[in-house]
Amino acid sequence: MAIIVQKYGGTSVANADKIKRVAARVARTKDQGNKVVVVVSALGQTTDELVALAHQVAKEPSGREFDMLVSTGEQVSIALLAMALHDIGYDAISFTGSQVGIVTDSSHTRARIISADRKRMMRELDKDRVVIVAGFQGVSEGQEITTLGRGGSDTTAVALATVLPADVCEIYTDVDGVFTADPRIVPNARKMPAVSYDEMLELASAGAKVLHLRAVELAKNYDVKLHVRSSFTEEEGTVVVAETQEMERVMIGGVSLDKEEAKLSLAGVPDVPGIAAKLFTALADCGINVDMIVQSVGEDGLNTISFTVTKSDLRLALQITEKVGAELGAKRVESDPGIAKVSAVGAGMRSHSGVAAKMFRALGDAGINIHMISTSEIKLSCVVDESRAEEAVQVVHEAFKLGTLTVEGTAE
Amino acid sequence: MAIIVQKYGGTSVANADKIKRVAARVARTKDQGNKVVVVVSALGQTTDELVALAHQVAKEPSGREFDMLVSTGEQVSIALLAMALHDIGYDAISFTGSQVGIVTDSSHTRARIISADRKRMMRELDKDRVVIVAGFQGVSEGQEITTLGRGGSDTTAVALATVLPADVCEIYTDVDGVFTADPRIVPNARKMPAVSYDEMLELASAGAKVLHLRAVELAKNYDVKLHVRSSFTEEEGTVVVAETQEMERVMIGGVSLDKEEAKLSLAGVPDVPGIAAKLFTALADCGINVDMIVQSVGEDGLNTISFTVTKSDLRLALQITEKVGAELGAKRVESDPGIAKVSAVGAGMRSHSGVAAKMFRALGDAGINIHMISTSEIKLSCVVDESRAEEAVQVVHEAFKLGTLTVEGTAE
Repeated sequence: MAIIVQKYGGTSVANADKIKRVAARVARTKDQGNKVVVVVSALGQTTDELVALAHQVAKEPSGREFDMLVSTGEQVSIALLAMALHDIGYDAISFTGSQVGIVTDSSHTRARIISADRKRMMRELDKDRVVIVAGFQGVSEGQEITTLGRGGSDTTAVALATVLPADVCEIYTDVDGVFTADPRIVPNARKMPAVSYDEMLELASAGAKVLHLRAVELAKNYDVKLHVRSSFTEEEGTVVVAETQEMERVMIGGVSLDKEEAKLSLAGVPDVPGIAAKLFTALADCGINVDMIVQSVGEDGLNTISFTVTKSDLRLALQITEKVGAELGAKRVESDPGIAKVSAVGAGMRSHSGVAAKMFRALGDAGINIHMISTSEIKLSCVVDESRAEEAVQVVHEAFKLGTLTVEGTAE
Repeated sequence: MAIIVQKYGGTSVANADKIKRVAARVARTKDQGNKVVVVVSALGQTTDELVALAHQVAKEPSGREFDMLVSTGEQVSIALLAMALHDIGYDAISFTGSQVGIVTDSSHTRARIISADRKRMMRELDKDRVVIVAGFQGVSEGQEITTLGRGGSDTTAVALATVLPADVCEIYTDVDGVFTADPRIVPNARKMPAVSYDEMLELASAGAKVLHLRAVELAKNYDVKLHVRSSFTEEEGTVVVAETQEMERVMIGGVSLDKEEAKLSLAGVPDVPGIAAKLFTALADCGINVDMIVQSVGEDGLNTISFTVTKSDLRLALQITEKVGAELGAKRVESDPGIAKVSAVGAGMRSHSGVAAKMFRALGDAGINIHMISTSEIKLSCVVDESRAEEAVQVVHEAFKLGTLTVEGTAE
């Protein structure tokens, strides 16, 4: 008898009718002879509404009280889903993160899971019950309610799948799976039947929002099979597993787009050791996450350091960079919020040469200027003008023939 | 340094602005040199909305999941109030019922408090913090979330006032205190500066909704001083305390109205022992609370038993009564949802004769027919046609001159 963890996001449980549909789907999985653990997010826009309320009563809500507040959203969902299952004749029981022993550190609003207790879940599964667990939340060792940050329900699902252990962790969402590119931008984008953890990680960090980054990391570390699929169809989605020999045949798996970053440059600084360390330590101390970093030395022997941050961090990052720049005697500091990052991701990149050249040529032929380039083992990212972003995704997708590529040797 | 428990109902915390106003009021109480514990209900209509959602997904929501669901309402309130206090510079910390050790029995949706733990509250009060506790909820010994039933936040407040112990338990509401009658019905109704626990109990059970019955019982048992007052003014409200010598001078304290009951009659049953027991055992077994009971023997030697139940229980009560009636060979069973109960309450009734006569005369003079009469030591209730209910309250209020009566020797 297989154990299946299913995670349903907020859009899948947005109202009573949708909750009933989720209940029917859970029931079918149960009828197929599986033990089922369900993780749910808060109903539709609930979390946003609670956050808005918090900001109406306080300028800076404390982390502890924020978690006390927003964790109620998932508690509503689990109770309603349990009721809906009872109503169609299935035994089910709901648990808060605390009740099912999801222990986290005490970093409110962005806690990390330390451990999860399988005993209570197994006891209920052995009674032939569906177990429903609130996503996104846990309890600290000091018995405080904590939350895992946006997208944390994915992480909850993978953590539970790890400790049970489950045969598969199904992530239900409003899209059919992981695509070679956003179908709204590239109409002939294809759903990928399978991707590796590493590709999924690069896709997630490159702006594909289908899976939460930490959830993929956790799944990779504990080898949890993920299945990203639509809650509105019965079709197979995309399986995320460890890399296989067959997968390597695919050079590029997908093209992703991230428009949420802005670019900063510190230009004309002396080429001496410690400059980058000084700048990025100052940024890290203020909690600013830096994504891409490019450094180059000009003919004048002066350095230019360019990097990207989230648009919402731009103003603060600019202040810090100007301050550090002044101390270092930099010639100028520039910022540009009007950029986008286009990334090609594929495990096959390792064994195929010429990938970068092909991508640069595709962009160049379209007259799209590349401002920054960054590479990892299986990802190649180019920063381009935001106004040309969609076109850039299209030409790169076309250059690698992703719309027509047949994936050999995968699950489908 | 006094310890004060303040309870704010749902209308007092209906939105962000009202929550800020409550925060300001709590802050003033703190500034006056008190240790403050605040109990809050769910925001405005939240509980009703959650209950409606439950009924959209299931015909009969289970008690456990119902409590899991509706307990979120109070959790939202406590977090928001804590944030609002932080925002105006006051240290505060919120707790769920479970976190502050409010242990109940396991009767979901109508749990009774077994114990409350003062240690956690005292530790926080000693740190000079305002302690905010979710009303209406607790945790069973099996670690399940429970709720106390409608109005349960009053009970939470009194329970906390008992264990602390607090000097006073202030119940904030949208009216100025306890009145001699509903001011919407009797324009010259007066606010009573003080009433005894017993009078408050009779008023509450007679339909005055200002305080939850169980809360008054608990306050009486542990001698907790209650102060019912408005959250919108600084005026003193009504103090509920043990009966004093001075209070006895008031013959009738107030007139209350209850339109939520329906009347049933089992007519023409033989006058033999065990009839009433059989009927009311059958009703109790189905969880139906019976309020007034009147039995009379007619000239034919046959019995008529009349009683009242909550309107929502009428249909079930009628089925049971018809079944029992058939077994007993009763001549007929009648039901009437169109009734109302008018009650005069006052500790002075004990020592004053002629109270009943005066009430009956007032109703008779107005041409209002009395269907049932029931008396207790300090209460006199008459069932009348629902269509004449408001007029009945007015004439009884007038008969006892409650609009002009001066209360001697009380707090004000």
